[in-house]
Amino acid sequence: MRIAILGAAGFIGTNLSLFLIDKGIELTLVDRDRSLFQKQFLDTKSIKIIESNFDLKTDFDLLLRNQDIVFHLISTTVPTTSNQHISEELMSNVVTTSKLLESCVKTKIKKFIFMSSGGTVYGSDCNCPIKEEDSTNPITAYGIQKLTIEKLLYLYKTMYGLDYKVIRLANPYGPYQKPNGVLGAVTTFTYQAINGECINLYGDGSVIRDFIYIDDAIKGIMNIALDCSNERTFNLGSGKGTSMKELIQKIDDSLNLKLEIKYLQERKVDVPVNFLDVSKYENLYGPVQTISLKEGIVKTAKYLENTTGKVLSKSE
Amino acid sequence: MRIAILGAAGFIGTNLSLFLIDKGIELTLVDRDRSLFQKQFLDTKSIKIIESNFDLKTDFDLLLRNQDIVFHLISTTVPTTSNQHISEELMSNVVTTSKLLESCVKTKIKKFIFMSSGGTVYGSDCNCPIKEEDSTNPITAYGIQKLTIEKLLYLYKTMYGLDYKVIRLANPYGPYQKPNGVLGAVTTFTYQAINGECINLYGDGSVIRDFIYIDDAIKGIMNIALDCSNERTFNLGSGKGTSMKELIQKIDDSLNLKLEIKYLQERKVDVPVNFLDVSKYENLYGPVQTISLKEGIVKTAKYLENTTGKVLSKSE
Repeated sequence: MRIAILGAAGFIGTNLSLFLIDKGIELTLVDRDRSLFQKQFLDTKSIKIIESNFDLKTDFDLLLRNQDIVFHLISTTVPTTSNQHISEELMSNVVTTSKLLESCVKTKIKKFIFMSSGGTVYGSDCNCPIKEEDSTNPITAYGIQKLTIEKLLYLYKTMYGLDYKVIRLANPYGPYQKPNGVLGAVTTFTYQAINGECINLYGDGSVIRDFIYIDDAIKGIMNIALDCSNERTFNLGSGKGTSMKELIQKIDDSLNLKLEIKYLQERKVDVPVNFLDVSKYENLYGPVQTISLKEGIVKTAKYLENTTGKVLSKSE
Repeated sequence: MRIAILGAAGFIGTNLSLFLIDKGIELTLVDRDRSLFQKQFLDTKSIKIIESNFDLKTDFDLLLRNQDIVFHLISTTVPTTSNQHISEELMSNVVTTSKLLESCVKTKIKKFIFMSSGGTVYGSDCNCPIKEEDSTNPITAYGIQKLTIEKLLYLYKTMYGLDYKVIRLANPYGPYQKPNGVLGAVTTFTYQAINGECINLYGDGSVIRDFIYIDDAIKGIMNIALDCSNERTFNLGSGKGTSMKELIQKIDDSLNLKLEIKYLQERKVDVPVNFLDVSKYENLYGPVQTISLKEGIVKTAKYLENTTGKVLSKSE
């Protein structure tokens, strides 16, 4: 089984690659720059690394030649800023992906796994926990591009037989996520906690999210990727809602720190409450979450200490 | 009240313009070529006609200056061929419309009316009559672009307050529709009947559609356009399903002709059954359909006789 991962150098891509290398899978890792990959990948001989942009000029036929499964993990933007350039968002993600799908049909890809977004495709107009069949009214261009690609996949399946799975992932956190505050509250807050930095919180802390430790997410992604049922679209998250206030309290407790919080104005793009009903997945594959948020925070903190050289303040 | 109609020279645009001229509304009609307009429009002084393409180079700020309401009737493709160039379909319709919406916010447009498609946004996976809240899984790129623009409108309303209505129109027919067989079975078959031509039928005649006479459609479009409720998306059709076989029988009966049918292979892009639940509209505005299919066929035949110089065979 040959697997190509598009967007392999990112947070999910890195963890997914590590998992698959461990299983001895033949991997082709694609991202826009070699320098984005972890060093250990560059030194692994069984991996093929390809530098490639993701745009209309990309030669997808060449990229996908002889591959069996494609993971599409690329997004050219993040939710919080995607509304600043809506037409570019659509062009660079949706239109390019439609070219990619054309190529998947041509190169006879056996399965296409698309990383969608449980946090943005549903919008703010639904009851939590959200089921896969609930209404989808995104309030970000990021959510619209993810949803439109899901619709394209349905078309390509119906018209050209392209097998696919859509993963509507909640908020993953953990090792290899960049703690830069753009994505990933758990990792960013944990990093700020370790470094004695003030935590920047948008709104009053009532915003609720569904956090899932990356190892649990990867296990779920692989179960869905290899799923042979007729189900196409899966929510993947812990299935539990945690408010930002609770999260900060949990970090505080787990690391035995007293955190300082700076309250910033709430952002219009933040859906107030979002957590997913994961019963479709769990009925097939059992519990998603095997690592509690508290355990996940401790693991993330240890990873950040090791990679950044910082130690927890409590042991300073 | 100043109204701009984008795609004004087409079938719906022409009928809508005639209706609004009759009401004394100040109109700006936009289409890609003056020659596409009916002659009577070119001679009407109260109408401003603007030649403009619909692409990323279009100066929408200029087009929309001082307008109150915008009707967006443009599609650069038709459902049956849209899957032949999916990425272009998305680029030319969705990406360009997102630029148009940006401009609507900038020029403070009071209301945006989007002509969506009751025949394609739902796909083939739902029970008829189809309700507005039913699942939307298009099997054509045409349906995907319409649906994605609907999603963009929701985003622009939520983020920037742009007021809008979406009209999911069934299959309109009648005067000013081109009887060229690309769109509009009623008009095309009626034209072929009048001219003693053989009727080209895709499949066995079991495909079911929801036909609405254009005058009823225009009345419905205007009711929805001026609707002040919080409802955003409306189905608009007769609410009844008619098979192609029944349609041909009705044309036969109405015009007292014996038609010759040529059966062609069914098309994969044709949803087998499609007719709309129009109760949301009818609860607010009463019956959609005031002209029966039989009456509509006779009216369409008369129009075609007058404009093409042909007369019904029965009177030949």
